[in-house]
Amino acid sequence: MTTAENALQGKIMQLQNDLLLRAARLEPIERAPVWFMRQAGRYLPEYRAIRAKHSFLEMIRTPELAAEVTIQPVDLVGVDAAIIFSDILVIPNAMGMELVVEEGRGGPKFPEPIRLYKQIKSLSDKNIASKLSYVTDAIRLTKEKLNGRVPLIGFSGAPWTLFAYMIEGEGSKDFRHAKQMIYTRREDAHLLLRKLTDAVAQYLIAQIDAGADIVQIFDTWAGILTPEDFQEFSLEYIAEIVRLVKEHTQRRAPIIVFCKGANHSLSEQAAIGCDVLGLDWTVDLAEVKALAGAGVALQGNIDPAILYTTEEVIEEKVRALAVRMGSPCGHIFNLGHGIAPDVDPDNARVFVRAAKEAYKKL
Amino acid sequence: MTTAENALQGKIMQLQNDLLLRAARLEPIERAPVWFMRQAGRYLPEYRAIRAKHSFLEMIRTPELAAEVTIQPVDLVGVDAAIIFSDILVIPNAMGMELVVEEGRGGPKFPEPIRLYKQIKSLSDKNIASKLSYVTDAIRLTKEKLNGRVPLIGFSGAPWTLFAYMIEGEGSKDFRHAKQMIYTRREDAHLLLRKLTDAVAQYLIAQIDAGADIVQIFDTWAGILTPEDFQEFSLEYIAEIVRLVKEHTQRRAPIIVFCKGANHSLSEQAAIGCDVLGLDWTVDLAEVKALAGAGVALQGNIDPAILYTTEEVIEEKVRALAVRMGSPCGHIFNLGHGIAPDVDPDNARVFVRAAKEAYKKL
Repeated sequence: MTTAENALQGKIMQLQNDLLLRAARLEPIERAPVWFMRQAGRYLPEYRAIRAKHSFLEMIRTPELAAEVTIQPVDLVGVDAAIIFSDILVIPNAMGMELVVEEGRGGPKFPEPIRLYKQIKSLSDKNIASKLSYVTDAIRLTKEKLNGRVPLIGFSGAPWTLFAYMIEGEGSKDFRHAKQMIYTRREDAHLLLRKLTDAVAQYLIAQIDAGADIVQIFDTWAGILTPEDFQEFSLEYIAEIVRLVKEHTQRRAPIIVFCKGANHSLSEQAAIGCDVLGLDWTVDLAEVKALAGAGVALQGNIDPAILYTTEEVIEEKVRALAVRMGSPCGHIFNLGHGIAPDVDPDNARVFVRAAKEAYKKL
Repeated sequence: MTTAENALQGKIMQLQNDLLLRAARLEPIERAPVWFMRQAGRYLPEYRAIRAKHSFLEMIRTPELAAEVTIQPVDLVGVDAAIIFSDILVIPNAMGMELVVEEGRGGPKFPEPIRLYKQIKSLSDKNIASKLSYVTDAIRLTKEKLNGRVPLIGFSGAPWTLFAYMIEGEGSKDFRHAKQMIYTRREDAHLLLRKLTDAVAQYLIAQIDAGADIVQIFDTWAGILTPEDFQEFSLEYIAEIVRLVKEHTQRRAPIIVFCKGANHSLSEQAAIGCDVLGLDWTVDLAEVKALAGAGVALQGNIDPAILYTTEEVIEEKVRALAVRMGSPCGHIFNLGHGIAPDVDPDNARVFVRAAKEAYKKL
């Protein structure tokens, strides 16, 4: 180990708030940690102030800017973890796809979607870590600035979700082209998914090596697949990533897997060796706890629409979840989906405060 | 009974193809019947030819036009049932909400969404059947024209789905306002849902009295609710409708309930007294069969994207479902969602042919 690595290792050991890591490892905790998916984002005026001066891609590619907005919700909302500010589409971009963001016209898009075998062949899954060094640099800088206050979460899109975006070029209602490929050109689909799996694994390993304390794999579009297709085109590959990451990292960073909408296969998800399952709001978390047994921690799963309501309703819903769960052990408070851009940040603060109190009052 | 009613009763008795009704009643069938949700629709050039000459609202309000497009898929695609051409939003319209369709700009919309208590109060759930006589007239005419070839399906939106549209004014990604109302103004929400329940029950009873052989309740937006909220704001009301319809109709028309995405509560759905559960493609139908037991028939549930593929793939997927199910008894072939406007009608025909053969080859 170099001196810098030793110093990093020292900092990781010195987390002042390691609730998230202990929850993920099913260790005893006095209360459940809380954070939001997409917590570094547009609902915060302080984020919008920075975003007004920089393009989205500039922000994710500039470690100083990424670190700044990553830390904002820790200071401003009081969450128990930071999640590195980035985008799931950096992987296809690093593999060779042009990525554009038209200001004011939705999320990032690929002007040239992948439809042909030769396009799949031309994508490279080599040297992903060095191509995405702007992310690992941002992680190092963020860790330094956080100075052990809370853990830092790294993340990646899951192969199936990246595949769906790459084939469509952008979000879609029915993901018609992605479905066409898995149904009619299964080998091509698997070739692309294998490349993505290798790329995602390298990327997550690099994030952990750079200091990420825990990582999350987002399978945002898992829910559009049949249970059988989810197994074949999504979960198998996520399981492979979990194996690769655990095999190739020295530090034992927990892995959160969030397959939104794939609630038909929760026990299968719990069995792939990940540490935490992220859940959307359409399952009863207490029932999942019984199903998943003692093997995995659970993250979620309040209806995101709750942040459009009032202090009373937010407190009641957060408290009700704690009551249903019975014990904070193995629970990480979160919404069942990313925080929406138009919620009142005060309501996010109410949620965090309520989550911090919820298990104490049981 | 009047002479006309006797004649109608006679016709109902004389169905030449009553597979759908026998499947719904779990009676022995030699093969599973097949139909598509939204089968009278834009994917058919013959539909588009009529639609080019008439507005959408004109079509649903003119019995001759509605009957004509209702029967088209029976002639052109070979389905085992017709479903009356209409729209779920006729109910809020009959209750007093203005309904507009801007040509080429998506589905019907309400320019003045329901947000206030006084708006809810002003909606009327009286005389729904007479206000929607254009639908019952269309049913009578269609029955006459079908002349017993296949059963005619009547339908309604479920209270929760109608509620969601009425509050938002149109479709929505997160149904923020509908969620706000159930979370912060629960009594107002229940007041509106109760009115909708009465209106839907009257409407379905009128459809059955007019000759509908079977009816389906569409809860298209059931999947955005938590399991607890689904129970309180959706399923309770559907159960009440099932009770009211069974109590107030002489003919024993089976009831299909399709709560799209509410797969967390399948046994609860099976227990409300409906005859058939409609299922989307994110559940394993054979597993649901085991869960639901002998109590209800199951309708579905092939991934609608399958119609974007090839003859071989369609045949393989249809056949695979029959193999999983083992027996046609209690199965109604359908997609897991409405047929998309841009599928090739030949692929719909391939699906129908494959469905008709699937159980014969077992």
